[in-house]
Amino acid sequence: MSGMKEEVCVRLVNDKVQFIGVSPANPEQPLTFDYAPPMGDGAGFNGLELLLMSLAGCSATAVVYLLRKMRKTVSGFEVQAQGIRKETHPIKFEKIFLRFILKSPDAQEEDIRKAVQLTEETYCPVWQMIKNNVDVVPEYTIIGG
Amino acid sequence: MSGMKEEVCVRLVNDKVQFIGVSPANPEQPLTFDYAPPMGDGAGFNGLELLLMSLAGCSATAVVYLLRKMRKTVSGFEVQAQGIRKETHPIKFEKIFLRFILKSPDAQEEDIRKAVQLTEETYCPVWQMIKNNVDVVPEYTIIGG
Repeated sequence: MSGMKEEVCVRLVNDKVQFIGVSPANPEQPLTFDYAPPMGDGAGFNGLELLLMSLAGCSATAVVYLLRKMRKTVSGFEVQAQGIRKETHPIKFEKIFLRFILKSPDAQEEDIRKAVQLTEETYCPVWQMIKNNVDVVPEYTIIGG
Repeated sequence: MSGMKEEVCVRLVNDKVQFIGVSPANPEQPLTFDYAPPMGDGAGFNGLELLLMSLAGCSATAVVYLLRKMRKTVSGFEVQAQGIRKETHPIKFEKIFLRFILKSPDAQEEDIRKAVQLTEETYCPVWQMIKNNVDVVPEYTIIGG
């Protein structure tokens, strides 16, 4: 943990809606935001896409941490996230599917299910922050070995 | 808008908690996630940082769009976002300050205030998705010219 504050800055860089976002904690990873034509040129992330990325990365970190704490071997790990948007404004996600894919020689479905439950309830702040506003559906796949 | 679905994938790439996140819609911008030591090596974004980026980019896009719709000149635009975290699990943001900095020869504070209000209520899906879970405080600065 790097202190109790996070700071970022997003700046308009063309005459449509392209922005460059920078986090001083990660200056080597500037992000390009844009929106699909005709409003933008589609040359970057939109906010919802990045929210999904944030949830996938945050939950992945927590689940891997918890599985290791449960003394399970994590040989490989992936989260595939899919967000389904509403068709009218506000076009927020009404549903997000989070598929956790674990490669492990010794973990059972019960283990990953428990780790994901703790992640949802306590360890993933991004999940906490969208709670009750969107239906998040976790799914599990375990690959032996 | 590129369809009603967003998909991303986040994959573990070391024996700590470093992940690479990819959105097929933006394959040229892979993101590195990591967590501060001792859990990780601090060599990438954490999920909360990226959530803040997502909110800043999403609200910035909406506010610029609305200001232009109101026939105001946007000569420059920036959003500075600061998130204050809780100290105990879940360590979600309890407060987010969103500072909107507009450079314009013809916009008044009333204009940006109205654009931000519409953004919060309708046009920014990320803001909608964290509603009631975190206190978002908008602030305004207008620079003439």
